[in-house]
Amino acid sequence: MSVQRLTTTANITHAFWPILYLVWEDQILTQAEHQAISNFLSKQNWISVDERNYILGKLDPTAPPSPAEMRKWKQAIVEAAKDSATLTEASIQLAKGDETIKDNRLAQLQVGLPQLETALGIIGKEAIYNFKLGHSTLTQQYDTTDNFDIAKLTELLDGDQADTINKVKSLLSEPEFEYIDPSNIEEYREQVLRWCHTLADNGLGNAAFPKEFGGGGDMKGYFAIMETLSYHDLSLVIKFGVQFGLWGMSVHSLGTERHHRKYLQDIGTLQLPGCFAMTETGHGSNVKGIETTATYNHAEKTFTIHTPNENARKEYIGNAAVHGEAATVFAKLVINGHDYGVNAFVVPLRNKAKELLPGITIKDCGRKMGLNGVDNGVIYFDNVVIPKENMLDRFASVNEAGEFESPIGSDNRRFFTMLGTLVGGRIGIPRSALAASKSGLAIAIRYGNQRKQFGPEGSVEVPILNYRMHQRRLMPLLAKSYAMHFALQYLTQRFLDRKEEEMQEIEALAAGLKAYTTWHTTATLQECREACGGKGYLSENRIDALKNDTDVYTTFEGDNTVLTQLVAKSRLAEFKKSFSGMNLIGGISYLAGQARTSITEKNPLIKRRTDDEHLLDPQFQLNALRYREEEILSSAGRRIKRLVDEGMDSFDAVNVAQHHLVNVGLAYIERIVLEQFIQQVERTTDEGCRNTLKKLCDLYALITIEQNQGWYLEEDYMDGVKTKAIRKLVNQLCWDIRQDAVLLVNAFNIPGSCLAAPIAFL
Amino acid sequence: MSVQRLTTTANITHAFWPILYLVWEDQILTQAEHQAISNFLSKQNWISVDERNYILGKLDPTAPPSPAEMRKWKQAIVEAAKDSATLTEASIQLAKGDETIKDNRLAQLQVGLPQLETALGIIGKEAIYNFKLGHSTLTQQYDTTDNFDIAKLTELLDGDQADTINKVKSLLSEPEFEYIDPSNIEEYREQVLRWCHTLADNGLGNAAFPKEFGGGGDMKGYFAIMETLSYHDLSLVIKFGVQFGLWGMSVHSLGTERHHRKYLQDIGTLQLPGCFAMTETGHGSNVKGIETTATYNHAEKTFTIHTPNENARKEYIGNAAVHGEAATVFAKLVINGHDYGVNAFVVPLRNKAKELLPGITIKDCGRKMGLNGVDNGVIYFDNVVIPKENMLDRFASVNEAGEFESPIGSDNRRFFTMLGTLVGGRIGIPRSALAASKSGLAIAIRYGNQRKQFGPEGSVEVPILNYRMHQRRLMPLLAKSYAMHFALQYLTQRFLDRKEEEMQEIEALAAGLKAYTTWHTTATLQECREACGGKGYLSENRIDALKNDTDVYTTFEGDNTVLTQLVAKSRLAEFKKSFSGMNLIGGISYLAGQARTSITEKNPLIKRRTDDEHLLDPQFQLNALRYREEEILSSAGRRIKRLVDEGMDSFDAVNVAQHHLVNVGLAYIERIVLEQFIQQVERTTDEGCRNTLKKLCDLYALITIEQNQGWYLEEDYMDGVKTKAIRKLVNQLCWDIRQDAVLLVNAFNIPGSCLAAPIAFL
Repeated sequence: MSVQRLTTTANITHAFWPILYLVWEDQILTQAEHQAISNFLSKQNWISVDERNYILGKLDPTAPPSPAEMRKWKQAIVEAAKDSATLTEASIQLAKGDETIKDNRLAQLQVGLPQLETALGIIGKEAIYNFKLGHSTLTQQYDTTDNFDIAKLTELLDGDQADTINKVKSLLSEPEFEYIDPSNIEEYREQVLRWCHTLADNGLGNAAFPKEFGGGGDMKGYFAIMETLSYHDLSLVIKFGVQFGLWGMSVHSLGTERHHRKYLQDIGTLQLPGCFAMTETGHGSNVKGIETTATYNHAEKTFTIHTPNENARKEYIGNAAVHGEAATVFAKLVINGHDYGVNAFVVPLRNKAKELLPGITIKDCGRKMGLNGVDNGVIYFDNVVIPKENMLDRFASVNEAGEFESPIGSDNRRFFTMLGTLVGGRIGIPRSALAASKSGLAIAIRYGNQRKQFGPEGSVEVPILNYRMHQRRLMPLLAKSYAMHFALQYLTQRFLDRKEEEMQEIEALAAGLKAYTTWHTTATLQECREACGGKGYLSENRIDALKNDTDVYTTFEGDNTVLTQLVAKSRLAEFKKSFSGMNLIGGISYLAGQARTSITEKNPLIKRRTDDEHLLDPQFQLNALRYREEEILSSAGRRIKRLVDEGMDSFDAVNVAQHHLVNVGLAYIERIVLEQFIQQVERTTDEGCRNTLKKLCDLYALITIEQNQGWYLEEDYMDGVKTKAIRKLVNQLCWDIRQDAVLLVNAFNIPGSCLAAPIAFL
Repeated sequence: MSVQRLTTTANITHAFWPILYLVWEDQILTQAEHQAISNFLSKQNWISVDERNYILGKLDPTAPPSPAEMRKWKQAIVEAAKDSATLTEASIQLAKGDETIKDNRLAQLQVGLPQLETALGIIGKEAIYNFKLGHSTLTQQYDTTDNFDIAKLTELLDGDQADTINKVKSLLSEPEFEYIDPSNIEEYREQVLRWCHTLADNGLGNAAFPKEFGGGGDMKGYFAIMETLSYHDLSLVIKFGVQFGLWGMSVHSLGTERHHRKYLQDIGTLQLPGCFAMTETGHGSNVKGIETTATYNHAEKTFTIHTPNENARKEYIGNAAVHGEAATVFAKLVINGHDYGVNAFVVPLRNKAKELLPGITIKDCGRKMGLNGVDNGVIYFDNVVIPKENMLDRFASVNEAGEFESPIGSDNRRFFTMLGTLVGGRIGIPRSALAASKSGLAIAIRYGNQRKQFGPEGSVEVPILNYRMHQRRLMPLLAKSYAMHFALQYLTQRFLDRKEEEMQEIEALAAGLKAYTTWHTTATLQECREACGGKGYLSENRIDALKNDTDVYTTFEGDNTVLTQLVAKSRLAEFKKSFSGMNLIGGISYLAGQARTSITEKNPLIKRRTDDEHLLDPQFQLNALRYREEEILSSAGRRIKRLVDEGMDSFDAVNVAQHHLVNVGLAYIERIVLEQFIQQVERTTDEGCRNTLKKLCDLYALITIEQNQGWYLEEDYMDGVKTKAIRKLVNQLCWDIRQDAVLLVNAFNIPGSCLAAPIAFL
């Protein structure tokens, strides 16, 4: 029997081809592999010397198999693998043509090959898949299913604002609103202004203003408009928000009837474009520190608005660089050399020919990371004189005798009351941000459902949304977006129904949700960009604009880290209120005096419960978030108190706890968001929608817990077995929700012309 | 005694002003506050009825104090607070002018006021700070200190590449390299090309090519050039990298001598601008799946390059839209209808007049999120015929008989060997990314050191870098950037010194560090943007460009999530190799068979050690990272094995573990990074530099542990007391490193004209 013969016709040695192929696949035959095979052969006395030599000959490191030989082996193995369940079966199949094979040689093979496989560390059931070309897997087959009625979910999301939302969507779908190339900033700004005029002409600008001044008297509608516009160009939203929200609402909220009569009609129709000039180069978050002055002249009954130094110039002011004709200017009121704190004044900037008025200098902020359709500018005032009636005097005024007057004695309180009326901005921005996240998710999820990459050997490729990692990246963000939708609806309603005594709570809620949502948007759009790969980087697919335009949302209407600390401080004060009338410091002191309270018992059985029934129970989820909320709040209080007791200046003590305080703010918001989501699930009557929302709510709750798993373990609130079970369940929910994902983003019902990204329409 | 008198002249009732002021400060007098004060007063028989009535009169909710009265109280309290250590002291000071006060009344006050304060929850030592205007705190005073010699640290960072680095820096500082407005894409692309020519003219383009073909033979220098250029416009870096790295190095690495002789000189001088045409619309990460064909015609000795369908067009190809005259095209080699897998071919695209050659269609990719100075294009080939010698035939060729030939038998192995030679791109990209992080940190840290916002009541404002939260945001990123610097140096050196058998390890290292670094860069620049507030959003401050240009780094040279899984799979294979010669599947099987090994003992004493000596011990830090690395590697193996044993298709099983595998890849990289940083600290001789680097290294180690604290607690490797101690130490290190932060970013020695951001030069 020649070696030639062993190679060409069916032969028992062919049963070793699969093993030879596998050991040579990485082109490196290791000592150990060689050893394992020759050891094995030396013990098999049913194999002839020729056969053995043939096999050993194929293991010569200096003469590896050629491409042609490797190819030949593979073809034969693939053929043999078709009806085989394991590598051994395929191997025996390859040997079957050999007429020299006697039953006992076959039996020897049947026993020996698995041993050799084991010695080489091959799992036969697994290895066979390398040769079962075109076999189908669960991962490939998985797909979108119709678990609920999209239209019903859209209805639920839109609620009583459906008419307004649909009106805006249909307007945005007009050809006039087709996107333009943003390269030329001048053209872009003019286009955005034209769009704004169209919106105003359609009665959207003055939606929130009182009816007696030409408005719609519909604050709720205004928020729905802002949000819906955010499916389109975000420069338009911000331009719209500056004009009607900031400029208009500042006149409305800080002024009195004569201001309303004089300005609101023209603002609402965009006849009088204006600005909101609060931030200065030197003072953004710390508004109290602004340095622009408004000096009262009793003889003339005028104020002189002045920029005392470079740092006091107004900066980043939207609508200022080109279009604004007037502004609400925040300045320190000075009477007889006495500083009466920050107040607001209407100051004309340009005439109708758009020429700057005397004493006004405006510079262009130039190119920004995004929002280049908005003309942000820097404003300097050089002793600009305005009449006394231009002071927006709802909360403070100068009386006939030239004296400062206010219904609010405390300067601090007056300042915060004034800012409090502007809280609407902290509702509009997160709602706009959330809409941008929804666009990003719609693009990335629809693309991920179509885009295929990699697959089992020789088989069709898999939609990337079927990969667990891809789901892990996008599904939690989708769940969080739904969660935030309901939380922002809640915030809006609380704001609309507000009573004086709830203002502090509502302000904290708005500040917290603004921070939480805008951070979520930044994270979501980043993930969407990466999830779309190179396609996500092309501007035509819109994640570029969405990401860059919303990036500043974490900064404006208050820097997010400053806002979350505000929430924390308000929470410390709240906590105290529920026990006594002590002030903030008292709150801390009080808390510190308490024994550590456990809102939820740390029950040793519950700590270790890992069953789905428990983990998916809203009560467990909410308890966990509440426990964290209360516990880190009180521990922050105790910590600050201890530091002060040890003699530290309280400013320093609060600084030491700053990181802790940010978490206090976030934990509060997370609890609120979950609470609202749970309530939403409970009141959803349509079964399909409810089941899907329940899954999203569970995912939101569990990723929030998972994110803080270190804390829960540290606190001994959960055991390791439980956090592991939660991680597993999160993965499972991501897998489950993937089936609904396309429908869930379609339920946002974003107009196709707004979404626009080609990759969302493959 | 009239009430009038009580109000105007010094009087014992004035001792209550501080308390009255504090309860009215929020303009809301609660029931509880009113109750506490009147209860108190009713028990103080040393207070007269008039006095009591005066005080109670100030607590009438219907007549709150006026602004003027609040102001008067505050002024008086501020005056009294000057020499007082507590609120009580100041209160007594206010009463002292009253000649009716007898010693016993003073004594009563001294006893009574603290009781009242306590009842109201006021901490006297704390509350006094509200009135100590202009007092100085630790937080305000904290500042940059000179703990080390900047020049010495720069020297250490630059190492033996200092000459090359300084040459590039001085070239970039020439007026010619001043940034231009990127609005006009055409102009921008031409400018970038001109800059590239200048670099080539200065001998930087061909640095890595062999000397015999006009190059510098200095691969190490090439990486230093790429990195240093990245302090400038990143479009330039990418254009440079496409021409000299991708186009040039593909000819160099995949071609043989005749290709080198024919092309390298012209590529290195930019006489022959070219492209690297690998990615197709349908296949990015899964390069093996590309569909472009190169069909061999033996009669003509030619290949026909063809794009069979829209998905097979080459996409995102740099240098293609305008400037490229040729390309290395990756295509499936077809001989006699047989597919021989992916190979590379040189294909001319344009003539010297930049006219497209027959059969070539190129479209412009259009505007991108960033890198708009690079002309990315889409290429279609319509039966383009090229001569046989254009096949880059280092790893495979067609012989004289028209048959496929290769020294590597395994198709898989040949494919990965070919890709392996291109690993340099996965070194250049993270080094470029890291340079961009350094620029971002230099801008944000220098700004944070100058920018002041908020401060103690009535006192100067605080540089925002002194806030703990700001430090928490930036210091870990600074430490991580230093850590990555040394890790990338190590990777570069391993690559330069590579031996054949180390290639798999080096490829995994490069893939992992590419992913880890580019994710770090995205995160860092996002944080820097936010940390700079509105200023960070203005394009003039360059975070815009840095962020948008590098955003795609997480995608190109391989999607980061795909790369980290590659690392994980390579790690599973590695693991096996150290025990036997089994293949990957065998590795998993082997691992699964092992008892769970604990590399480091879970010593109950060590689990609870919280002292600095222990936590700052490199051995503890490294053990913790190693333990995690080994443990999640083997648990991933066990998990996949279990699923396959249960009958799951291995493709599905790997998918189930995908999230886990990403962590396996990252844990490996983190251990390597820490190991290298620790070694760097050990070999640093200058004491100042070593101390600073040690702090950075500690911070890197501890934030990495902190990030995985949930896992360590779950595994019972650490106790809650220990993770808490680590968190505290992280905060402390952030505080400590803040003193060095400005020097640390200055040590990057980024040319001022490159950094350019006005906020970095306040």
